[in-house]
Amino acid sequence: MTDAKASQFGVTPQSVDFNEWYNEVVVKADLADYSPVRGSMVVKPYGSAIWERIQRWLDDRFKETGHESLLFPTLIPMNFLQKEAQHVEGFAPELFTVTKIGTEALEEPYVLRPTSETIIGHMWSQWLNSYRDLPFLHYQWGAVFRAELRTKLFLRTAEFYWHEGHTAHATQEEAMAETMQQLDLYHEFCRDVLALPVIRGPKSASERFAGAVETFSIEGMMRDGKALQSGTSHYLGQNFAKAFDVKFQGSDQKEHFVHTTSWAISSRIIGALIMTHGDDKGLQLPPNIAPIQVVVVPVVRKDNAETMYQEADKLAAELRTNGFRVKVDKREGVSNGFKYNDWELKGVPVRIELGPRDLEAGVVVVKNRNADAKETVARMDVVAYMGLRLDEIQQALYDRALSFLQENTVTVDSYEEFKTAIEAGKWVRAFHCGDAESEAQIKEDTKATVRNIPLDGELFGEREEGVCVHTGKPSAYGKRAIFGRQY
Amino acid sequence: MTDAKASQFGVTPQSVDFNEWYNEVVVKADLADYSPVRGSMVVKPYGSAIWERIQRWLDDRFKETGHESLLFPTLIPMNFLQKEAQHVEGFAPELFTVTKIGTEALEEPYVLRPTSETIIGHMWSQWLNSYRDLPFLHYQWGAVFRAELRTKLFLRTAEFYWHEGHTAHATQEEAMAETMQQLDLYHEFCRDVLALPVIRGPKSASERFAGAVETFSIEGMMRDGKALQSGTSHYLGQNFAKAFDVKFQGSDQKEHFVHTTSWAISSRIIGALIMTHGDDKGLQLPPNIAPIQVVVVPVVRKDNAETMYQEADKLAAELRTNGFRVKVDKREGVSNGFKYNDWELKGVPVRIELGPRDLEAGVVVVKNRNADAKETVARMDVVAYMGLRLDEIQQALYDRALSFLQENTVTVDSYEEFKTAIEAGKWVRAFHCGDAESEAQIKEDTKATVRNIPLDGELFGEREEGVCVHTGKPSAYGKRAIFGRQY
Repeated sequence: MTDAKASQFGVTPQSVDFNEWYNEVVVKADLADYSPVRGSMVVKPYGSAIWERIQRWLDDRFKETGHESLLFPTLIPMNFLQKEAQHVEGFAPELFTVTKIGTEALEEPYVLRPTSETIIGHMWSQWLNSYRDLPFLHYQWGAVFRAELRTKLFLRTAEFYWHEGHTAHATQEEAMAETMQQLDLYHEFCRDVLALPVIRGPKSASERFAGAVETFSIEGMMRDGKALQSGTSHYLGQNFAKAFDVKFQGSDQKEHFVHTTSWAISSRIIGALIMTHGDDKGLQLPPNIAPIQVVVVPVVRKDNAETMYQEADKLAAELRTNGFRVKVDKREGVSNGFKYNDWELKGVPVRIELGPRDLEAGVVVVKNRNADAKETVARMDVVAYMGLRLDEIQQALYDRALSFLQENTVTVDSYEEFKTAIEAGKWVRAFHCGDAESEAQIKEDTKATVRNIPLDGELFGEREEGVCVHTGKPSAYGKRAIFGRQY
Repeated sequence: MTDAKASQFGVTPQSVDFNEWYNEVVVKADLADYSPVRGSMVVKPYGSAIWERIQRWLDDRFKETGHESLLFPTLIPMNFLQKEAQHVEGFAPELFTVTKIGTEALEEPYVLRPTSETIIGHMWSQWLNSYRDLPFLHYQWGAVFRAELRTKLFLRTAEFYWHEGHTAHATQEEAMAETMQQLDLYHEFCRDVLALPVIRGPKSASERFAGAVETFSIEGMMRDGKALQSGTSHYLGQNFAKAFDVKFQGSDQKEHFVHTTSWAISSRIIGALIMTHGDDKGLQLPPNIAPIQVVVVPVVRKDNAETMYQEADKLAAELRTNGFRVKVDKREGVSNGFKYNDWELKGVPVRIELGPRDLEAGVVVVKNRNADAKETVARMDVVAYMGLRLDEIQQALYDRALSFLQENTVTVDSYEEFKTAIEAGKWVRAFHCGDAESEAQIKEDTKATVRNIPLDGELFGEREEGVCVHTGKPSAYGKRAIFGRQY
């Protein structure tokens, strides 16, 4: 690679400065850009194509499991948030406030929704009559707003994109079953589509969503050892039901408050995708989410361009017929080397170099993004090859990420070991007493927090008794909690 | 129908009060509801399912024609709007203003986007270098905000949903070709999917989008004779390019400003769908857009419920396998009559009544939403029947709407005739001089405006010379303009 190319494609190595690596990859791979609005980003076509695929997969599954989409207003009356005390306390510092419409100053301001439990609760209280109306299984796709001091594209933006699911049930059991079902769906989605190994479990009391009785998360490990909370599912009990008077007449003819849940995955997950699979060449997209799975680069000279473009289109058409997402790179005025680097930076799983002499010999050259060497594949075998190889790449990325997570998680029984491991960028498995004050002190000492307490049967979820690594009190969870620094 | 049922399903007849009919249909058919946020609605699952189908169809077509989706911020710095003089003048009275983040008062306020030309222009100026980068073919789906004094669900809400397309081109010719291509796409979409006959053409100068050089619209006629502007496509010339410094180095090595377009269809179109096809029984959905094309109502007694549900599921499965969207209504505690009225109100194109005796006789009873009588169809022929009948219903709804539009459009040559026809709820074809003052006076006299000037080859688009029906000056357009009252 020449220096000129390096300046265009080269990214700061992860080992030198992981933050800088991330920022460069997002911008240079054309996923997103900074905007003139404080804290907000612009998602560019390549990033948007990834987000659309995420939406499509999840949306289909929501519908299959009986959920219905709605559209609630972006604005929420400020006084709605105040009806749930913990909720407003959690969100007040982050609110965008609308105080004027046209030239009219508003007596009662609106806020841009940071989340929609309140306004949905208000509507439910009007729609709900009888137990026959339940459950409400609702969700919406949209933008939400939470002020951020420092922008980090996808990970920390004032406006971000998500779905938020909201359900109401007659009983605690049903609501809890829904909470777990959606948590499991998120886990499945991360594993099978994004190739992200994530740990399921409840958060500690002090890390719960503002207003929740129980918050469950999925947590992934980034290449710098930090955790990224990649999705959450909350059992809200009757907190919002009582705040918004959401009740129904039961089959017993009496009035009851509903039990509610909410759950979300946001555009932050694209940050997890980047920081779990990326390397010093840039992005690395798992085939199941990649907008482009295979890029075909015809090797063109002046005298053979037309023929080679035809051959490339023919190959692309064959692959598309077999269900692959394919792009042919016909850009002019740039070298093949430029194109190869560009597609590696953009993380396309497989590149096919289509050269005239290879083609005469009945072969094409294939370069997998996750391999160092090129391969030669018979032209007639390309479709069959791709069917196998894309699955292998998907699995290889998952395995790589899982090994990394396992290798960088350590079990400790003393606070000294704890601090050393956190400082070294590890996740730590340790007993904890569950006291909020102790968690706060640990956070102050080490910047680490309880990520979650892995569920039974989950990796790291073994039942075990012991004493708190920080206070020496009995463990609160019957097992070790996961601690780590987080995004 | 008993009185009790009437109160639940009955809607005010269109002939008695069309406005009231509309409001009742939207709420009773469960499309949308009023919200506690001034001017904003909640789109309920049935309305959201329609909107999602609209989105999916259009989105696929945008992508097929090379357009790419992006996500731009919802907030726009107030001073951006001020850079295009006409633009800010047009939108200032309708803006929602954010003046506070957390506890911090903003020196420079943000507005909730009423449309995104300004911020997109700003980003383009950073992204664009060479003619090789062009064209930019961008669009986004999202919510926009324009204050409204009186809410009318779907038609006039402070927050509404849309896509907005934004493209930038090297030449005026390319930009104009794009403008017309998207107008034609909207026309095709309305005709083939929503069964809405619409008239394509340019708006008069005084009805142009704030900042446009030329605005084209598609206009449909509602059952009360009013027009609804159902989509717009704007050629913006270099107005926004100059305001936001969007320029490129041409192949001639010189700098040029781009020529831009923008185009949109919003959730208002659902209002057009309701008011074009609806009748005194409620909604009437064309099969190509209906979330449920066929509803199967098993006729159930206590002793046969299980069998009949099985038979209904079997029939539904057969229909689904053949690509139809089907629902089986297994609600308990309500009568068959209740169900029939409910699905007629919701406008489902075909209802199948599955009774035990009919089934023994090898038949089912079918009721088409747009017919008065029921039909008996052999059970084994249901799939084939549905393939033909749904297409026929789609066509019949289009034909009915087109006849209505033609019958309620009159050609006049005097201002007296003009006023009489408008007062009678007609569209009027008349010559006009194109003067903005004259248009304003006509509007004051009659509440009618120029809807558009139909394109050559379009219905009502015949070339013809004459003198202005209002001023007696020569006609400005070489043909008659369409006047009407509008939503």
